[in-house]
Amino acid sequence: MDLLESTIAQIAPQDVSWRARARARLEQLTMPHRALGRLMDLAEDLAGMTGSMAPRVDRKTIVVMVGDHGVSAEGVSAYPREVTQQMVHNFVAGGAGINALAQVSGARLVVVDMGVAGGLGALVQEGKVVSRRAGEGTRNLARGPAMSREQAVQCLESGIEIARELGATTDLFGTGDMGIGNTTPSAAIAAAVTGQPVARVTGRGAGIDNEGLRHKVRVIQQALALNRPDPTDGVDVLARVGGFEIGGIAGLILGAALLKKPVMVDGFISTAGALVAQVLAPDAVDYMIAAHKSAESGHALMLAHLGKRPLLDLDLRLGEGTGGALAMSLVDASARILTEVRTFEEASVSGKAR
Amino acid sequence: MDLLESTIAQIAPQDVSWRARARARLEQLTMPHRALGRLMDLAEDLAGMTGSMAPRVDRKTIVVMVGDHGVSAEGVSAYPREVTQQMVHNFVAGGAGINALAQVSGARLVVVDMGVAGGLGALVQEGKVVSRRAGEGTRNLARGPAMSREQAVQCLESGIEIARELGATTDLFGTGDMGIGNTTPSAAIAAAVTGQPVARVTGRGAGIDNEGLRHKVRVIQQALALNRPDPTDGVDVLARVGGFEIGGIAGLILGAALLKKPVMVDGFISTAGALVAQVLAPDAVDYMIAAHKSAESGHALMLAHLGKRPLLDLDLRLGEGTGGALAMSLVDASARILTEVRTFEEASVSGKAR
Repeated sequence: MDLLESTIAQIAPQDVSWRARARARLEQLTMPHRALGRLMDLAEDLAGMTGSMAPRVDRKTIVVMVGDHGVSAEGVSAYPREVTQQMVHNFVAGGAGINALAQVSGARLVVVDMGVAGGLGALVQEGKVVSRRAGEGTRNLARGPAMSREQAVQCLESGIEIARELGATTDLFGTGDMGIGNTTPSAAIAAAVTGQPVARVTGRGAGIDNEGLRHKVRVIQQALALNRPDPTDGVDVLARVGGFEIGGIAGLILGAALLKKPVMVDGFISTAGALVAQVLAPDAVDYMIAAHKSAESGHALMLAHLGKRPLLDLDLRLGEGTGGALAMSLVDASARILTEVRTFEEASVSGKAR
Repeated sequence: MDLLESTIAQIAPQDVSWRARARARLEQLTMPHRALGRLMDLAEDLAGMTGSMAPRVDRKTIVVMVGDHGVSAEGVSAYPREVTQQMVHNFVAGGAGINALAQVSGARLVVVDMGVAGGLGALVQEGKVVSRRAGEGTRNLARGPAMSREQAVQCLESGIEIARELGATTDLFGTGDMGIGNTTPSAAIAAAVTGQPVARVTGRGAGIDNEGLRHKVRVIQQALALNRPDPTDGVDVLARVGGFEIGGIAGLILGAALLKKPVMVDGFISTAGALVAQVLAPDAVDYMIAAHKSAESGHALMLAHLGKRPLLDLDLRLGEGTGGALAMSLVDASARILTEVRTFEEASVSGKAR
C-alpha cells in the first residue's frame, strides 16, 4: 500500500472521550457557563484531536506551498507570473506579509517549492526553500488536465512527508500558499467538490476588474466542462483542475490529521486544499481549524461545505498563510483556558446563586 | 482647572497627516491592494494615534477595574455579591480567564479596587491591588443615584491618573472589569446615552433566566425614570446610573487619549465606560479600539453608537478584559505590517500587470 493510501486508512476522528473530559472541566471554570464562547469549543477540539487535557500548541509551523499555474496564460490574474518566484525571494528575505504576521504568534516558516516555473535553485541549495517540485508549473487547465494523476499523488505525498518530517518539532501546523493564478484552480476545485455554480465561488483574486472576473468565470466553466473532474475522487479533482501547491496543502492536512495534530487552514486557496483532503479522508476535517473568512467571494461556501465556522473575519485576501498566522494566537488562548484557569472549587469562588 | 476638565480640554483627534503617510506606504506593500483588510485600517489608526510610522505597541497593560454594586440587592445577578472579592483573589493568584489570556499577548495585569464591598486590605498592602476606592460599592440605583457627582469625578480622575502613571511603561492599554451586578448599570448607561429602549440593551449578564431578565429590564427602567440622567453630561450619567469601576474605565480611556496611546476596549461593561468617555470628550473615540462583539445583547448597538466595528466575534461574555487581551495580538500584527513588510520597490517584486 502506498503512502497516500496508508495515510488515509490511518486517519481517525477526534477522541470523544477526551472531548467529554475537557467539556466537564470547562463547565467548572471560574466564570459564567461557557463565557469564553468559541474559544471553549476550540479547547474541546484541541483535547479531542490530541487526546490530552493539556494540548501543546506552542511549537507552530506555517508551511507555505508555492507553485505556478499554466492557466495564467489565459489572463486570469492581475499580476505577471514572475511574481511567484519574486515573492519566494521576499519570503526568504523576511519582507512579506506572512513574515510579519508569523512573528506575532512565534510561528516558524517553511517554504516549499512544489513547482515554480524556472525553479529556485540557489535558495534550495542554501537550505532556505524545500524542493518538492512536481514540474515547471501545471499545464493550462482550460485546455486539458492541470497535471497527471501521478503528479497529483506525488504532490499529496510530498505534503504528507513534510508534515511527518516537521511533526517531531511541531504542535500546530498552518497552511500557506503562493502562486500567481491560483485562485482559478481553487475556484474550480470549489465548484467541482461543492456543486456550487462557478460564478458563486469565483472572486477577483489579487484584483481583476469586472471584465476580468467574467472572463475568469468562463475559463473555469470551460475547464470543468472539458476535464469533468469526479467529485468523489480527490486525486482526480486535483489532477484535472488543481495546482501543485494546492496538492501540497491537501497532503499537509492529511499528514497533520495522521499525526493527530491541529492544522490551521488559511484562506481561499488553502480551503481548496482542505476540500481535496476532505474528499480523500472525511475524518481529516476533525483536525482542521478554519482561520478566517476571506474577502474572496465563495470562501464562505467552501467553509460551509467543510462544516467549519471561521475564527476571524477581517476582510483579508492575501493568502501566504497570513490568516492562519493571526488565528494561531486564539489557539494559544484556547489551550491556556484548559490548563491555566481554575475551577470554582480550586479557587474557592462561590458558584451561581440561582 | 481640575484634572478631569484639563484632560478633556487637551484630548485631540488623530493626526490626519500621519494617517495619510501610513496609507501611502500601505498602498505599496508587496501584496494586492489593501489585501490585509481591517489590519491595514488599524495600522492607519495606530499611525494617526501615535504620530508615528513605527507605532510601538509591545508594552501592553490591561487594567482591571473592580467595584461592587448596590443594585445587586434587587436580585439582578446570577451570582452572589461576594464573588467580586473572591475573583480579585483569583486574579492575584493567576487563576482567572484574564490571567490565561493576558499571557497570549504578553500583557501585564493591573487590578484596581474602585470600591469593593469589604475592601481588599491585605492585597493592597502587599502591592498586588491598587486602591482607588470611591466607597463600599455604589448605592442601589433603583432607589436613587448610584453615587454622588463628587464620587463620579473621583472615579474618572482615578482612571486618568492610573493611565498617566502606567503611561511611562505602556504602549497599548486594555480595559477590564469585575463587579457582580455590573451589566445592570452598563445597560442603564447604554440606554441613557444611545437613547435605545432598555430591553434592547439589556442581556442575561452572567446567566439569569427569562424571568430574571424581565425583572432586570424593569429595574433599569425604574432606575432611569427615577434618576433621569442627562445624556449630554457624562458625569451625571455615571453618577446617577453608573458604577465605580465603569467610571475608572472611562477615566482610563480619557487618560490614554490624552497620552495619544491606543486603548483596547473590551466588552459590554468596558463599552459602557467608553460611552461615558465619548460624552465627556468625543475625540477620545479616536484612540479606542473595539476588541470584540460580546454575546451580551445590546453590545452591538453600543459599538454602533461609538462608530466602532469590533475586531473579534467569538461569543465571549466574560469581561475582565479578556476580549481585549485576545485582540491585542491583532494590534501587534497591524503595527508589524507598517514596519516590517517591504514595498514592491524595496523587494524588487513586479507590480500589477493590468
